[in-house]
Amino acid sequence: MKVIASFALAASVVVCSAPAFAQFAKPEDAIKYRQSALFVMSQNFGRVGAMANGRVPFDAKVAIENAEIVADLAQLPWAAFGPGTDKGNTRAKPEVWTEQAKFKEHSDKLVADTVKLVAAAKTGNIDTLKTAFGSTAASCKACHDAFRGQ
Amino acid sequence: MKVIASFALAASVVVCSAPAFAQFAKPEDAIKYRQSALFVMSQNFGRVGAMANGRVPFDAKVAIENAEIVADLAQLPWAAFGPGTDKGNTRAKPEVWTEQAKFKEHSDKLVADTVKLVAAAKTGNIDTLKTAFGSTAASCKACHDAFRGQ
Repeated sequence: MKVIASFALAASVVVCSAPAFAQFAKPEDAIKYRQSALFVMSQNFGRVGAMANGRVPFDAKVAIENAEIVADLAQLPWAAFGPGTDKGNTRAKPEVWTEQAKFKEHSDKLVADTVKLVAAAKTGNIDTLKTAFGSTAASCKACHDAFRGQ
Repeated sequence: MKVIASFALAASVVVCSAPAFAQFAKPEDAIKYRQSALFVMSQNFGRVGAMANGRVPFDAKVAIENAEIVADLAQLPWAAFGPGTDKGNTRAKPEVWTEQAKFKEHSDKLVADTVKLVAAAKTGNIDTLKTAFGSTAASCKACHDAFRGQ
């Protein structure tokens, strides 16, 4: 029962926190959440890239698996950029909050790109995968250039 | 091209690293990867728990979404417990590597539990969800007790 009680406690903290990031107990959790999701995504994306760039042999099954993780994870970070999560252990620029429409445009584009990445992996054609990988990588970079500091 | 080149470089590092954790450029990445996946999983699991424990209103759609993220993420940490990843910023006990069969038994059980959690969420029945949540939470705890230090 102890473990269930501890999850129940965590849940009650969620209820008591500010509505803007109500799904996180505290701002640090939101920051850690988005960084964690982005890190897991980047590792799997790098594996797709290794194949797309010919550094490791192309294995369609592995490419699909990795691309699917990328697509799953690409959906997660954005809800964790709520108000009050701009300070602390984060490189997010103030523009994330002052230019929210533009930020959303970037995150929506990434999500769409990762769906295409999965579709490309499923074709089994390395050139198709290469194109989708390049496009997704460009989305990563565009958003980092605009919204991530040093 | 710069971003593509940088992913290509990361890929070449992967190729040159030890076979045992060939999918990670360095042991620290593997440690960060498993911790990140477990953290994202725990946050979503906590949200399911909030509903299972009646701390927030039961919303079947949200419960399914969160449970699906839990099930997706539950598959990821285990490949990141390769040899050489027992030192550094980790609370993993030596038993992870000295009792690999038992560790795998625990991780397999968690993965199976999370699949049942999704199925339970999909029934739309809060009691069914509660049971599945309790069972999954017990799996988390059993593995932490045996394989995670302070």
